[in-house]
Amino acid sequence: MKLLNTDTLEEVREKLRTETEEMKFRTCVMDMEESCGFICAEDVFSPEDMPPFDRSTVDGYALAAQESYGAGESSPVFLHVCGQIGIEEAAEISPGEGEAVRVQTGSMIPEGADAAVMAEYTEEYAPGQIICCRPVSSGENVMRRGEDIRAGECIIRRGQKIGTAETGMMAGLGIRKIRVYERPSVTVISTGDELAGEGEPLTAGKIRDINTYTLSAAAEESGMTVLNKIRTADDEAEIRRAVQTASEKSDIVLISGGSSKGNRDYTKEVLEDVTGNVFTHGIALKPGKPTILAYDRARRTVIAGLPGHPMAALLVFRLVIAHWYRMKTGAKEPFLIPAVMGSNVSSNQGRETCLPVRLIRTADGYEAAPVYAKSGSISALSEADAFVMIPRDREGIRKGERIWAELL
Amino acid sequence: MKLLNTDTLEEVREKLRTETEEMKFRTCVMDMEESCGFICAEDVFSPEDMPPFDRSTVDGYALAAQESYGAGESSPVFLHVCGQIGIEEAAEISPGEGEAVRVQTGSMIPEGADAAVMAEYTEEYAPGQIICCRPVSSGENVMRRGEDIRAGECIIRRGQKIGTAETGMMAGLGIRKIRVYERPSVTVISTGDELAGEGEPLTAGKIRDINTYTLSAAAEESGMTVLNKIRTADDEAEIRRAVQTASEKSDIVLISGGSSKGNRDYTKEVLEDVTGNVFTHGIALKPGKPTILAYDRARRTVIAGLPGHPMAALLVFRLVIAHWYRMKTGAKEPFLIPAVMGSNVSSNQGRETCLPVRLIRTADGYEAAPVYAKSGSISALSEADAFVMIPRDREGIRKGERIWAELL
Repeated sequence: MKLLNTDTLEEVREKLRTETEEMKFRTCVMDMEESCGFICAEDVFSPEDMPPFDRSTVDGYALAAQESYGAGESSPVFLHVCGQIGIEEAAEISPGEGEAVRVQTGSMIPEGADAAVMAEYTEEYAPGQIICCRPVSSGENVMRRGEDIRAGECIIRRGQKIGTAETGMMAGLGIRKIRVYERPSVTVISTGDELAGEGEPLTAGKIRDINTYTLSAAAEESGMTVLNKIRTADDEAEIRRAVQTASEKSDIVLISGGSSKGNRDYTKEVLEDVTGNVFTHGIALKPGKPTILAYDRARRTVIAGLPGHPMAALLVFRLVIAHWYRMKTGAKEPFLIPAVMGSNVSSNQGRETCLPVRLIRTADGYEAAPVYAKSGSISALSEADAFVMIPRDREGIRKGERIWAELL
Repeated sequence: MKLLNTDTLEEVREKLRTETEEMKFRTCVMDMEESCGFICAEDVFSPEDMPPFDRSTVDGYALAAQESYGAGESSPVFLHVCGQIGIEEAAEISPGEGEAVRVQTGSMIPEGADAAVMAEYTEEYAPGQIICCRPVSSGENVMRRGEDIRAGECIIRRGQKIGTAETGMMAGLGIRKIRVYERPSVTVISTGDELAGEGEPLTAGKIRDINTYTLSAAAEESGMTVLNKIRTADDEAEIRRAVQTASEKSDIVLISGGSSKGNRDYTKEVLEDVTGNVFTHGIALKPGKPTILAYDRARRTVIAGLPGHPMAALLVFRLVIAHWYRMKTGAKEPFLIPAVMGSNVSSNQGRETCLPVRLIRTADGYEAAPVYAKSGSISALSEADAFVMIPRDREGIRKGERIWAELL
């Protein structure tokens, strides 16, 4: 059964992708030290070999491996120490036959040597003379030039989030600048006569605005910047002014209506007026059906009318807007957690279900316990650890079935 | 076998806990809107009931449930609509016998009503007159006052990280301020003659400083603020000055030596001089053995001398310093991922092993593939997704064994 006038989640994602094809997120060149947490905007290639020279990975003696052949506890090889190379020094010495050079972990391996023997397997029996009681093979205890990273190798891909590892590679390779995606700007608009203002005491029938704050927090967690938070009454003219201004100033506008019907109608009309391009009028998704999506071609702004219930608004934001942002920047999808469903769960066929769950640790994995919340519950928000998607063509998930959960 | 002069990871954690018992991290009261990402510093209790009044969870009619008893498709109940309550209105009407009040999702349930029937199961057959063809039980489609959250209930615990859900609960309950832990301040000191300066070309034997950047990024990711980054030569006086200044100005000082032996000796001597309280001289951990820990009682600063290799320094930072910070603030331990080991892995008995792994998705879970990296490799940093701890009393992990991995 396909619900009238609604798109599947997959269709919504595809429409949003197509509509915004020519929209590109702004990038900028950033100091490597400031880039942690940003998304890399172009492939980064190594400018040099790492290590830049053959390097000893042990404290000991560099030598031609063949000099050590046959060495053993009872048949040590005698070697003359012809010099030493500190870790900060260029190797200006070259061991010949019967010779070795003292090196530290990180020291350059000199010409003429191709291996290093660990100090533990040697003994200095006279000044400048050692015995070696273990053979090494060519390349042993040596990291070859370029063995870790070769010049020209792609070390950070477009879409990769800059974290500790990426920072470490840039530092090690002397890369001081990187092109990243600027954080897209978001305006959050909450509409509804029943919303009490900040710090206003709750009078009868009023409820407090939750969506402004949860959507702002979710946008920030997704790597966006919240430019502005606007609250309007259920008044078409007021909503129109707010949406127009927001569309001019931001890349993404999130409108969350109260739960009243009239309100939703205003939003739809306003989005049609402002953009002339509302392309989704509902998603076959539970929760999340009353979602409207528009793309303002002139101002290159995506505008989403999200459901009024906090949990539904958050899930649609994650499944549609955050997903789209990752797709546009090439960023990785979130890491999913494997779990076993802890009880039978039914779902509406024909409508994909997004089920909040708690993840309970068992001996060797997680059990997912559904969080059932009455419509509008806010404690459910903090009770759930993750959510599980139940496909449209399923009637539910059986107890004991293996599922993948996405952390909230 | 216990390695001479080293502590187990567990011993190190316990020593650090005991040494810093009287050290408290600073807290501050913060605007709720700014608090996302911070750690809550005291239990937060709900100041009010949520919802603040009995609320309809549907669009329809509020009534005394008994008025609907016996209603069915073929035997509808006739009701008089005695008024309506918008979602922003106080309920000033009270339905009597044979009466119902029109309500919206979120509307207050009036006196005399204890349930709501969905509009779908009613029909207006004349102005102000409806038929109802489905019975409701007491409480049906109503969220009772305090059902979601009761006044006085603890909604955010000390140690909880403020995220989307916590933000939503504070917003819903009108909590505008929250006491959080200030980010502790960190100074990162890198020592070593072999380190090339920023932007300096690599001359023979020099390598670039990686630890300053990876440790700074890891500290920021752990919720700390990096005050200062200092680079010193292998010079005892220079290191001493840097440590003294850093200890005065920050809560945590991270020193990462180059891999030379002399360097490590300087660090130990300097920490003894400055703090008189070096309590760990090595950890029975692979990698991570050359770790020195000190607590500067006078200045209340934890000083860690970390290994020179980037991967080892990062792992010790996570396993010791970040773990200690979570313990001090009551923050949750990281979410672990269940996986199956993809190959046999051996480890040194008597020394705990921290094994970097890649997590490869299989049909119903993850397979952990060990990342073997030569000492000092930086590409290994980005190759690994997570790490697995192999206990001291094990000789390794067998292929197919179930393990828990912590995401890097």
